[in-house]
Amino acid sequence: MNAVGEAGDRSRPPVKDPGTVRPGGRTARVRAAVLRAAGDALAEHGFDRLDLTDIARRAEVGKTTVYRRWSTTTGLVADLLDDMAEQSVRRSDTGSLAGDLRANARLVVTTLNDARQGPLLKAVIAAATGDRRTEQALRRFYDSRVEEWAECVRLAERRGEVPVGTDPHEVVRAVSAPLYYRVLVSGGALDEAVGERAVAAVLAAVRAGVYVPE
Amino acid sequence: MNAVGEAGDRSRPPVKDPGTVRPGGRTARVRAAVLRAAGDALAEHGFDRLDLTDIARRAEVGKTTVYRRWSTTTGLVADLLDDMAEQSVRRSDTGSLAGDLRANARLVVTTLNDARQGPLLKAVIAAATGDRRTEQALRRFYDSRVEEWAECVRLAERRGEVPVGTDPHEVVRAVSAPLYYRVLVSGGALDEAVGERAVAAVLAAVRAGVYVPE
Repeated sequence: MNAVGEAGDRSRPPVKDPGTVRPGGRTARVRAAVLRAAGDALAEHGFDRLDLTDIARRAEVGKTTVYRRWSTTTGLVADLLDDMAEQSVRRSDTGSLAGDLRANARLVVTTLNDARQGPLLKAVIAAATGDRRTEQALRRFYDSRVEEWAECVRLAERRGEVPVGTDPHEVVRAVSAPLYYRVLVSGGALDEAVGERAVAAVLAAVRAGVYVPE
Repeated sequence: MNAVGEAGDRSRPPVKDPGTVRPGGRTARVRAAVLRAAGDALAEHGFDRLDLTDIARRAEVGKTTVYRRWSTTTGLVADLLDDMAEQSVRRSDTGSLAGDLRANARLVVTTLNDARQGPLLKAVIAAATGDRRTEQALRRFYDSRVEEWAECVRLAERRGEVPVGTDPHEVVRAVSAPLYYRVLVSGGALDEAVGERAVAAVLAAVRAGVYVPE
């Protein structure tokens, strides 16, 4: 099976036909297949063993296409993170900050425990410690996720649930911090109870005005 | 200059003289020099480019000694982490939980911002995402650090400062979590104000009973 309609000699650049290259068309399908293959490879064996030729083979895409479009594994991972940010789950709107932050914590726990997403994110975080471009792409990804959920805190402020001036981004980051710390640093099981405790801690700190800048 | 008194042919195993191999003697000096060189190399160019021959050269120790004693870079990094745990700064005893946790946060901020310790820890955390033995050594290191500072929470409980049954380890981990999250995941400056906010958040959560297991 060929995911993107490009069979045959994989070392040959695909024939370009401008009439068929449209948004959502072949170019988009090629990108989707390559990014999926890159994510699979990252989850399976980490960043350092990523290889564009292997990814082209997994994606059933001509390797020249992959090299021409992404040039390096670093560039490909940056594009993968941008795509993940676009595709990511929207924020909840449960009507209370507690409900919204619980939904966020459950999403983070589920993602980090997911057999593909967990290793993928860990691999990218590890790579970002030693590579500036991957670090920047990782920051963009998390900035976008934090901005998405920050709206829950702004809505809570408008409902009078949190002190005026509460920093919405810091509240969202504070929910994630103990969950990522557990996975990356301290170890230990990451389950729903850990997520609940993270939310309870953040709510107590929010009420105490800890996230209102001085 | 030769840090450990082993000059000459570095590929030749050192002559063993049981009369001179005593605790704190040559064996201890060799270990200290090799672990320091390993830490320097990790901080400079990460885990993946660690090389025992390069480390032997930096430490001015015969490479056969290094290969015989540590076998692999993974084994050497595990020994480095065990040594770091032994050498680490003792907990504070300021007389209040707030004072002790502030001292802890300042120590973590200083360590993560240190030109050698920061990159070294990031490199080991990154390596642990893809290597089971390094992960175990990393867990031992942080378990030992957390246990050292957990005593501050136990003392606070005895002074009646925190709810009975507060989990001392989780409190200490909660101080570190947002600091490591910032360095590894979200980015942003890590300064004393960030440490202060982490402590304020943990104290609010402790008072609310969040760290008393149900």
